[in-house]
Amino acid sequence: MQTDPLPELYPVPGCRLGTTAAGIKTPGRPDLVVMELAPGSVCAAVFTQNTFCAAPVIVAREHLSREHPGYLLVNTGNANAGTGEAGIHDARLCCESLATQAGCVPQAVLPFSTGVIGGPLPAEKIVSAIPDALAQLDEQGWAAAASGILTTDTVPKGASTKVEIDGQPVTITGIAKGAGMIRPDMATMLAFIATDANAGQEALQGCLSHAVGKSFNRITVDGDTSTNDACVLVATGKGPVLEQGTPGYTLFLEAVTGICVQLARAIVRDGEGATRFVTIAVEGGATTAECLQLAYTIAHSPLVKTALFAGDPNWGRILAAVGRAGIADLDLLQVEIYLDEVCIVRDGGRAADYTEAAGQQVMDRKELTIRVVLNRGDCSETVWTCDLSYDYVKINAEYRT
Amino acid sequence: MQTDPLPELYPVPGCRLGTTAAGIKTPGRPDLVVMELAPGSVCAAVFTQNTFCAAPVIVAREHLSREHPGYLLVNTGNANAGTGEAGIHDARLCCESLATQAGCVPQAVLPFSTGVIGGPLPAEKIVSAIPDALAQLDEQGWAAAASGILTTDTVPKGASTKVEIDGQPVTITGIAKGAGMIRPDMATMLAFIATDANAGQEALQGCLSHAVGKSFNRITVDGDTSTNDACVLVATGKGPVLEQGTPGYTLFLEAVTGICVQLARAIVRDGEGATRFVTIAVEGGATTAECLQLAYTIAHSPLVKTALFAGDPNWGRILAAVGRAGIADLDLLQVEIYLDEVCIVRDGGRAADYTEAAGQQVMDRKELTIRVVLNRGDCSETVWTCDLSYDYVKINAEYRT
Repeated sequence: MQTDPLPELYPVPGCRLGTTAAGIKTPGRPDLVVMELAPGSVCAAVFTQNTFCAAPVIVAREHLSREHPGYLLVNTGNANAGTGEAGIHDARLCCESLATQAGCVPQAVLPFSTGVIGGPLPAEKIVSAIPDALAQLDEQGWAAAASGILTTDTVPKGASTKVEIDGQPVTITGIAKGAGMIRPDMATMLAFIATDANAGQEALQGCLSHAVGKSFNRITVDGDTSTNDACVLVATGKGPVLEQGTPGYTLFLEAVTGICVQLARAIVRDGEGATRFVTIAVEGGATTAECLQLAYTIAHSPLVKTALFAGDPNWGRILAAVGRAGIADLDLLQVEIYLDEVCIVRDGGRAADYTEAAGQQVMDRKELTIRVVLNRGDCSETVWTCDLSYDYVKINAEYRT
Repeated sequence: MQTDPLPELYPVPGCRLGTTAAGIKTPGRPDLVVMELAPGSVCAAVFTQNTFCAAPVIVAREHLSREHPGYLLVNTGNANAGTGEAGIHDARLCCESLATQAGCVPQAVLPFSTGVIGGPLPAEKIVSAIPDALAQLDEQGWAAAASGILTTDTVPKGASTKVEIDGQPVTITGIAKGAGMIRPDMATMLAFIATDANAGQEALQGCLSHAVGKSFNRITVDGDTSTNDACVLVATGKGPVLEQGTPGYTLFLEAVTGICVQLARAIVRDGEGATRFVTIAVEGGATTAECLQLAYTIAHSPLVKTALFAGDPNWGRILAAVGRAGIADLDLLQVEIYLDEVCIVRDGGRAADYTEAAGQQVMDRKELTIRVVLNRGDCSETVWTCDLSYDYVKINAEYRT
């Protein structure tokens, strides 16, 4: 579907990026990115909850627990997942190579991979290309890096903002990739966000966890959680000091959340085969959990998603999905369902004033909201998703994840 | 995909069926079926667990609790779901009309509907066609009825068997419909099974619940549970008496289960757009619940289903689905995954002796089994599903459920 152009990505003092083509899958295509972080940078991260997590996730978690990271090493074209002990070895080998060339300990390098699951990582190609990636390091390197981490994505994804905290400017810039195998669980496919704020580890992790919970953990393309999901927030410490509980921290947290929401929505907008961007809003629920359960049931329903593709205001399928979501003691007579401003279901059936023409008018929009009002509590949740088209099937029948 | 032809359906003494065209959706197409049950027949039933259950489900449940049923009235072309109070009124009207013409109380008529959700039931068309349906009543009417209850199905579905119990022959014959919105939960879309055995209500319900648990509740096309699911088992009592706990009852229970499994598998084989029939077998689980959870996670994964459509032995996607299924404390090193006889995953990664050629050989088959061995307990479960093809999207983008 129509995607937004990459916005201006402000450089973050203390963070340089280098991108090169290592020939991992397609010769000549940018597929290797190195992010260099100024000494003293602090790093927060969330990773996939998939039990079969990829080798780089295992190594990155281990390195994070032992050293302040100095470099992130990201390759596309191969996920290094389902590769057993050999995969762990390959991930370490790449970290060691970068460490030797950059003059740091291997544990200061965090590896990230995305692409085909199951094939051995071509570590020698990565090792050979690292010198060029290092030669490209540049504070202006964000846009090139945004392209260098893509797989089935059709557009690079980035977001950037500047806020003033305690009278000092703070920059937050992030990039992300992802289009399929998207139902992040504590993280998205891959996202890298940097700021020049000066924050402690705990404050930074709290901020990232909050932001991810409101962004990457609220999107789904196909319900399939990747083995390689990772989201990293780096603070280079060149800017103002942030303390938890201060107004400045709250401002920062909101800004990081805003960046994450932009990136997460960009992933859905570029969802494999997507032709429509759909917001599922559940309101008036008794608990957050039941709101999410209902929202994801609608967002994952193949019947709702194909109706969205067809632009068919087929509210019966939405009603059926609400009914099967497993919400305990749901009183149907209290449930209202809306397509944007048009009420389609009320009093246990089709709303008396609903007309097919009004429903069709909403479904002709490329962006729309399915809103379910339960009228039994104060909780609400929002999830973003896309439709299910011929092209989703085509892309995934032809591409080997 | 290749489906089986309708087998010979043996008449069941005490049960007659009449089929006619009421013009509910398409003029001239058979869309109305009446099943007449001999006086004293006993009826067991299971219905959808979808909270938004259809009007006929509400009325059928109520009638079942008050009278021995004498007639089943089934229409296709309109689900009478999401129709509120008017829908209940229409369902009752149809029952009353049949009751008047047949000379029974309205509560002895059970209504069933399937088709488009949300539109008002054209009750007057049904009422007008009932005399012709009654005129067609015939013990040989099973095949015509199997065609008369279809919606997006491409073939009629039936199964029939004769067993000898206590030296007397017992016939069991059933028909079913369903191709999309299939993830039955205590029932399938619509299935009607009759036997001439003489069984009490409790014995019959126990038998049906067991059979449905091993058949209709083990299939999924798209994970969408219908609002109208219903499965009915009728015993006309013309044959031998069945008592729970006797060898004869066990034999009967196994025969009914066999019929249900045949019908359930026929639904998957005729799944919307299906090109492959896939068995998901999970073995060595600690609990039945975790086996089912894992099997359905694989069966619902759009990435696994599109790889099956492509005939691509993309075992990485199966591994990713296993990893995200939420099985607590899963030791990956113990997990083995097989495509039919070929081991694809062992020791936490690709099996050492796996070859792409061997995997491809299995994926070239139109029927195959994905077998996951957890090696942590004695429980196992089997689920049947199909692939996700262009045609699934086409059918559901063009058809209004």
